Amino acid sequence: MLQAVLGVLADSGYERLTLEAVRERAGSAGALLEADDLDDLVVIALQHVRLFDVPEPTGSLRGDLESLLRPWLGGRRFEDKVIAGLLSAAEWDGKLRDAVHDSFDRPLAQAVGAVLARTCGRELPAPDVQTLNWILRGLALNRLRAKDARAHVDLDRLVEYLLAGLPPVRHAETGTVRA
Amino acid sequence: MLQAVLGVLADSGYERLTLEAVRERAGSAGALLEADDLDDLVVIALQHVRLFDVPEPTGSLRGDLESLLRPWLGGRRFEDKVIAGLLSAAEWDGKLRDAVHDSFDRPLAQAVGAVLARTCGRELPAPDVQTLNWILRGLALNRLRAKDARAHVDLDRLVEYLLAGLPPVRHAETGTVRA
Repeated sequence: MLQAVLGVLADSGYERLTLEAVRERAGSAGALLEADDLDDLVVIALQHVRLFDVPEPTGSLRGDLESLLRPWLGGRRFEDKVIAGLLSAAEWDGKLRDAVHDSFDRPLAQAVGAVLARTCGRELPAPDVQTLNWILRGLALNRLRAKDARAHVDLDRLVEYLLAGLPPVRHAETGTVRA
Repeated sequence: MLQAVLGVLADSGYERLTLEAVRERAGSAGALLEADDLDDLVVIALQHVRLFDVPEPTGSLRGDLESLLRPWLGGRRFEDKVIAGLLSAAEWDGKLRDAVHDSFDRPLAQAVGAVLARTCGRELPAPDVQTLNWILRGLALNRLRAKDARAHVDLDRLVEYLLAGLPPVRHAETGTVRA
């Protein structure tokens, strides 16, 4: 049932998420479903959707940012389309907004935070972290759209661009980079 | 009637854009409206929506970027909410996607292009322009959301960050900056 809800969202977006559409996918499991349950099901289904993982350590900020960003330049995955289908609805519904936050915003902030803490120790000033986080969130959001210009963006150049804006990195007090 | 359509979009999003909702706002003008007309009305109404203007020249790239970005750190305007309400639907409908492109993506690319051409002449390599454009589009998209972290972002710091990623600017051949 939850998979049926996510399937409709990814294929048609929230505005086509109807009782009929979910029942059609869920088969006999959908028989008892009622229209009032749909939003609750979306929220529960989204608990299994997490758009970003903390990338494996590469030993450098450049390498970790590349690992984080490389998938963004490719095509959209199933989970990306689910969130794309909910972005507008989440603007007007607090429960959906929180669910999108937990599947999209929070995992991204955690991944960015982990990468920065790992490779920079605690040396970066908070405003830089927030600015980088905001920029990356924007890029991630743009990537959810089918039609954008990411095909023209070169990963190496983008990472260079993002690194250039950060102050020179001093490694954590041990002088070593955790790998 | 067009204003009624935009009003429903800004207040409730595309999924609540129904015949009843528009009729209620449009008054007697809505009496002859049919459900099949709604998407066409959205497309026509969006022709009057343009999220970005080319900023007035300040004489420097820094100043022009600040002019472009300053409004993004504030609250959302009516037009921003209209587009926020359409983002998901535009993923599955080609006509709406084109309309959002003309109201959001194209004016932004034009504003960024004008600012760069004005203050950098033609000196910036195309990949840098595309990368900056992609970053700014992401920020603009993020700004359409009610809940995000822009309140923590400092405009000066953001502009510094964006400038740092660009190669050192040489002014156009005349050596002067148009102001």
